[in-house]
Amino acid sequence: MSERRNQILEAAVRVIAQDGVRGLRVDKLAAAAGVSTALIYYHFKDRAGILSAALEHVNHRAQTYTEPDGLDGRERIEAILLRELQGDEHVRETSIAWGELRASAAFDPGLRAPLRATTEAWSADIEALIRAARDTGACASGVDAADSAERLTALVEGLSERWHSGSLTLERARELLSGAIALELGP
Amino acid sequence: MSERRNQILEAAVRVIAQDGVRGLRVDKLAAAAGVSTALIYYHFKDRAGILSAALEHVNHRAQTYTEPDGLDGRERIEAILLRELQGDEHVRETSIAWGELRASAAFDPGLRAPLRATTEAWSADIEALIRAARDTGACASGVDAADSAERLTALVEGLSERWHSGSLTLERARELLSGAIALELGP
Repeated sequence: MSERRNQILEAAVRVIAQDGVRGLRVDKLAAAAGVSTALIYYHFKDRAGILSAALEHVNHRAQTYTEPDGLDGRERIEAILLRELQGDEHVRETSIAWGELRASAAFDPGLRAPLRATTEAWSADIEALIRAARDTGACASGVDAADSAERLTALVEGLSERWHSGSLTLERARELLSGAIALELGP
Repeated sequence: MSERRNQILEAAVRVIAQDGVRGLRVDKLAAAAGVSTALIYYHFKDRAGILSAALEHVNHRAQTYTEPDGLDGRERIEAILLRELQGDEHVRETSIAWGELRASAAFDPGLRAPLRATTEAWSADIEALIRAARDTGACASGVDAADSAERLTALVEGLSERWHSGSLTLERARELLSGAIALELGP
């Protein structure tokens, strides 16, 4: 990815996390990224192009901080999911932007297809890990990997939104998610 | 509640479900409710007053359609939670408005306290039902009623947002929620 393109997408995530998708105007994004609006149109064509690239970028950011080097099996699943809930500013910003893109898709049909593809890829990754852990005996043998993956990722989203909206502390959200993983994957 | 006040709040839920909290302007709400802006200010003082009353109204609407007459114990818990996910327009509108109020609270600090109180009351209701079911042997004896209630209600929200954003069908969301209830409450 070009340096300038990356710089614009980093600014887009920041603006979305601060003011919401509906606060994302191209002139504001240009100011936040320190580039011209023309350069933004050159890279992303229009506002829909910005949003769909921003969604991909949010997903890419989350993948970098959830990747647990050196962990395997069940510990790997736990780490990947729990790392979605961290207090540092980079994670919080990424998570708020994701939740806001999710919520905006109820009003912006253009966001739905890319969001669905990204959600399915996320669930499929977790499902593959659960299936592998089950096959090596690290999870209970009766676990339905697809159901568990879809529920756990949906719960990550539900808990994240409660965290960002001030209904839940980060510690409590992590504790509840840990409990869900234990229930889903069995003793 | 006065007839006029109710009429304004019904219109507010409709406008929020169609255009989002950030699309809710007082003049637009007045037009949707068929009343003057002065009457809206008389009842709700300002925009923050409208939003906090709308939140309460959304909660009240959800309570009316989730109340399962005549059911008891575990069946009552299942029915209350699953009735959050129904295809008819009234439920869908209420659920979209709730998700939008939740998401907006990340950007609107004034929404956080009422949202937190409403969320805690919802969880406490489910927790009391789980505790009662556990005490009569309708749930596994090891169930942590508070944790299960908080997780199940957060999952309802996470699944609802996926449904409204087109990442999940209503049927699949209900199936996943049923599975979570079975896991949380035990065999």
